[in-house]
Amino acid sequence: MNYPNGKKNNGNSKQDTAPKQTEFGKRGMTLEQDINDTNAYYLLADKAVIHKKPTPVQIVKVDYPRRSAAVIKEGYFKQASTTDYNGLYKGRYIDFEAKETKNKTSFPLSNIHEHQYSHMKAVCSHNGICFMIIRFSAWEETYLLPAEAMFPYWENQHKKDGKKSISLEQIRQISQLVPFHFQARVDYLRIVDELYF
Amino acid sequence: MNYPNGKKNNGNSKQDTAPKQTEFGKRGMTLEQDINDTNAYYLLADKAVIHKKPTPVQIVKVDYPRRSAAVIKEGYFKQASTTDYNGLYKGRYIDFEAKETKNKTSFPLSNIHEHQYSHMKAVCSHNGICFMIIRFSAWEETYLLPAEAMFPYWENQHKKDGKKSISLEQIRQISQLVPFHFQARVDYLRIVDELYF
Repeated sequence: MNYPNGKKNNGNSKQDTAPKQTEFGKRGMTLEQDINDTNAYYLLADKAVIHKKPTPVQIVKVDYPRRSAAVIKEGYFKQASTTDYNGLYKGRYIDFEAKETKNKTSFPLSNIHEHQYSHMKAVCSHNGICFMIIRFSAWEETYLLPAEAMFPYWENQHKKDGKKSISLEQIRQISQLVPFHFQARVDYLRIVDELYF
Repeated sequence: MNYPNGKKNNGNSKQDTAPKQTEFGKRGMTLEQDINDTNAYYLLADKAVIHKKPTPVQIVKVDYPRRSAAVIKEGYFKQASTTDYNGLYKGRYIDFEAKETKNKTSFPLSNIHEHQYSHMKAVCSHNGICFMIIRFSAWEETYLLPAEAMFPYWENQHKKDGKKSISLEQIRQISQLVPFHFQARVDYLRIVDELYF
């Protein structure tokens, strides 16, 4: 990822994304960028109002050079206490987490932190629409997994002999494959329409 | 504001908030801290799931010291493209911006950026609950101003002879005073119940 000033992202995937050229038609973009493009299209088409939350940063030191903007000189990435995306669709609250895995056969449950699980439980209990978008990058397959279908797997991992991951085979049974479209690269609202409306 | 490492916030009000001791009963806290405490109480009481979004930061340079966490060495505060708070209440999407003013007689409309106005318009048009929480710190008065009632003032400011602020007198006519409570210091959901349910 390149920042507008030409400096490179050093590979930390939790960094905040800078605005960049949209390259429709090019495969191999990150799931995050695909979802951001999709959300921008949904907003432009007046279909939904869904945004990625900024990356949480713990700011420790800030400099104030004369006549210019404040510069953060020391900061740390914090773990998010909620999911990455939320917003509004057809009058309903929508909330989801997106995860990409290079694993070819299963999705490791360690990708879902406990406070994210708690947050998703709370959203479901308050009648929000809540799910995960999981991409298996090796297969270029992206799934929408409803939070309610994920919970039993997450809870089971802490039990004796509990599995630490969900196999791709299981994912295929409890999820919907998200279609790819030119304008909505991860057209998840099509699946939301099927599952929740 | 003090950060856990003892370093001081240099006065930039848009900095990310570190977790701190909750000091119930103490007046004179910032509106942001009061709302964060209120949201924490709402969550604990299982009343609503509403969070402040992290402060958007443009990260430019990151160091990776051996065997320790990534350190942000250069970053800048970005202007938010949406409002600061959103979440879920009684199955509905809720979205608001909070602003504190030292002005004793009016609320300057320059506090509401154009993209925030656009975001609030989109939320209203998609049937979300959208408002502003405005505190006049001189009077220790906090108001809930529905977005729909604010829009005409914001739009009018760009017209010939358009006013650049909303007078406190007008605020009092088009808003509801938010009650103070021990556990919910800015108990805005009481007003939301009256206005939207």
